[in-house]
Amino acid sequence: MVKRIAVGQAGGPTAVINASLVGLLNSLDSDAELFAVRDGYQGLAENDFVPIDEQYLQWIKKHRFVPGACLGSGRYKFTEDRIHQAVHYLKHNKIDVLVFIGGNGTMAALQRISEKAREIHHHLQVIGIPKTVDNDLAGTDHAPGFGSAARYIAASTRDISKDLEAMKNFEQVRIIETMGRNAGWLAAASGFLRDSENAGPHFIYLPEEPFTKDQFLSQITQAVKEYGIASVVVSEGVSLNGNSQTLKEIVDDRTILGGISLQLESLVKNELNLNARAEILGMNQRSSSLAVSYQDQLEAYETGKKAAELIDNDHTNVMVTIKRTNDFPYEYKMESCSLECVTREGERLLPKEFIENRPLFYKWLKPLVGNDLELYPSALKTNMKTHKKVYPCQ
Amino acid sequence: MVKRIAVGQAGGPTAVINASLVGLLNSLDSDAELFAVRDGYQGLAENDFVPIDEQYLQWIKKHRFVPGACLGSGRYKFTEDRIHQAVHYLKHNKIDVLVFIGGNGTMAALQRISEKAREIHHHLQVIGIPKTVDNDLAGTDHAPGFGSAARYIAASTRDISKDLEAMKNFEQVRIIETMGRNAGWLAAASGFLRDSENAGPHFIYLPEEPFTKDQFLSQITQAVKEYGIASVVVSEGVSLNGNSQTLKEIVDDRTILGGISLQLESLVKNELNLNARAEILGMNQRSSSLAVSYQDQLEAYETGKKAAELIDNDHTNVMVTIKRTNDFPYEYKMESCSLECVTREGERLLPKEFIENRPLFYKWLKPLVGNDLELYPSALKTNMKTHKKVYPCQ
Repeated sequence: MVKRIAVGQAGGPTAVINASLVGLLNSLDSDAELFAVRDGYQGLAENDFVPIDEQYLQWIKKHRFVPGACLGSGRYKFTEDRIHQAVHYLKHNKIDVLVFIGGNGTMAALQRISEKAREIHHHLQVIGIPKTVDNDLAGTDHAPGFGSAARYIAASTRDISKDLEAMKNFEQVRIIETMGRNAGWLAAASGFLRDSENAGPHFIYLPEEPFTKDQFLSQITQAVKEYGIASVVVSEGVSLNGNSQTLKEIVDDRTILGGISLQLESLVKNELNLNARAEILGMNQRSSSLAVSYQDQLEAYETGKKAAELIDNDHTNVMVTIKRTNDFPYEYKMESCSLECVTREGERLLPKEFIENRPLFYKWLKPLVGNDLELYPSALKTNMKTHKKVYPCQ
Repeated sequence: MVKRIAVGQAGGPTAVINASLVGLLNSLDSDAELFAVRDGYQGLAENDFVPIDEQYLQWIKKHRFVPGACLGSGRYKFTEDRIHQAVHYLKHNKIDVLVFIGGNGTMAALQRISEKAREIHHHLQVIGIPKTVDNDLAGTDHAPGFGSAARYIAASTRDISKDLEAMKNFEQVRIIETMGRNAGWLAAASGFLRDSENAGPHFIYLPEEPFTKDQFLSQITQAVKEYGIASVVVSEGVSLNGNSQTLKEIVDDRTILGGISLQLESLVKNELNLNARAEILGMNQRSSSLAVSYQDQLEAYETGKKAAELIDNDHTNVMVTIKRTNDFPYEYKMESCSLECVTREGERLLPKEFIENRPLFYKWLKPLVGNDLELYPSALKTNMKTHKKVYPCQ
């Protein structure tokens, strides 16, 4: 049977989500009739299915290494009415297979679509491909997109800390804000390249841990006393003093977090009288082509390829997963798990053992980020700048 | 004669300022007695000269590829009294040669030091090595540090614009803020990778050009109408409606610019009712190890090497310069010019011919940024996403 397959991308893009798409398209049965769903759920709800002809296919394939989501992704309130509408269009367009590349929201949406399709007796095969920089998807060792984002954050934190070391007579504190709504995977990755006691980041604040103003100010004071500077990392999702998370704004009922670093900057300036700067790492975290991790890029492609295999084998209601089979040397294989299994667990936070044993986390992280970011041999890590002032000719 | 040479780094660090330092140290006469001046002018004024012994030398050399300024750099009000003090210490420590790696402020400071030294009859050879991400130094085709910063900004703007394209049903406008206090070199570099009409950045606002609220809002409206999004770049140094530049704060009498993008974000939200986001590229612009340009890194090293040659040949009151001898293939040589020549011209802005003829500017920029950032073949630049909605089965 020639299958009619619709494919879409949803949520925030990543540097490698297009690689998953190309992996899928390169691996599908050449007889399949392909349709692009544009702008994520919106395309589903508004019947925006575009036949992927040869010209469109070639255009998409050019995006294998391009950040962003080339079908259009975005955010869209996928209400019950709209899901109902989507299923109606899927049936109307005689779509046999729906594949979406996305995160937790997408896997939940796919499940709902599958249920609704069954209700209206439309036989629909439903496949999810994992994607999230936050790495909060259950059922998989990690999700494509995370490795590259972690790589960006690790390098940025190391570099911005090095920069601060040189500026300490002018600026003493930097507060680097990372993505990661409720999960600390990305924030914790910021310490991956820390190679000595005095190198930044000196402290990392995770959404999973309590975070108080007093603790923060005392740790800043301690670091400045010891190293002349404090370079700290804070996840956008932390709650100060048990209050709610710092909201940047609300758009279409979606809360956009952000700005905790600016609050902390003010705190440091006002209460410690030090010069501080908030650094919000921004969209580059999820889209920087300069930070793409080779392994992440490869795995993203392979998840797409695996989805094609699941389609061929008539699997449904499953998400592709990456199963790590060995840490060192890193080995893994592509598998799958039920959507139900993913959504039941919900957002996967940074595990306690990784919070408490950071070297263990970095060992786990290394193959995903890459081991090519170290800039100088570790043999000479002493920071000469902490030497006391000397007077050569007195 | 065995020379006693003191070397320092001043101002904001770059991703390649340590390469200049290592280039110098690797090329100096092995008999020379070397001293590190720590924390820029502060080390000069406070007699913080550290003998560079073998261990310290090896430690410094490890920083060839490390961002930041490993001797300490920073900002310091170099008043007449302090310059006087510095010259006294230089004489007291029997320093024969002073080499500083820095920008316009540093070259002016070196000139004053040289004059003062002459006044107190201390024979002092003074050499400047150019460094600035802003590229506003006169006398040289360009300055080390600029190429890597431009590379970071060009890639970030392309990537963040691609990300926005995918998010247009949720967010329509991004305002990317770059460094460049009074000169538009960096902001203009943001368009280097723009490869089609609908790709961002759609508009770039330079400090050299008038910039009004009305013009801004009408250009945003125009881009959103045409492409569904507007991705624009604004230099931190632009003046809205002829007002003064947007000040983040004043520290030690130094004005820190920043925040114009936040003002513009509010404007777009309030007056156009679109969802907008300010993206301040931050310290990564000057310190990202991921964005280092090979050519920039190489030239930074070579400016240090050239400084060693100038020392050997008893030149004084000069700055190393890069002379471009051919555009394509790019050819250049290391030369020098008088400090007087640099300071007389002052901040070099983006020339009118580059403002008006952007392809000419990008042709000039290409060898400095590198030609390896293009992510997909230019053969298929049509943006399929602008195709009208189609209904496959209606």
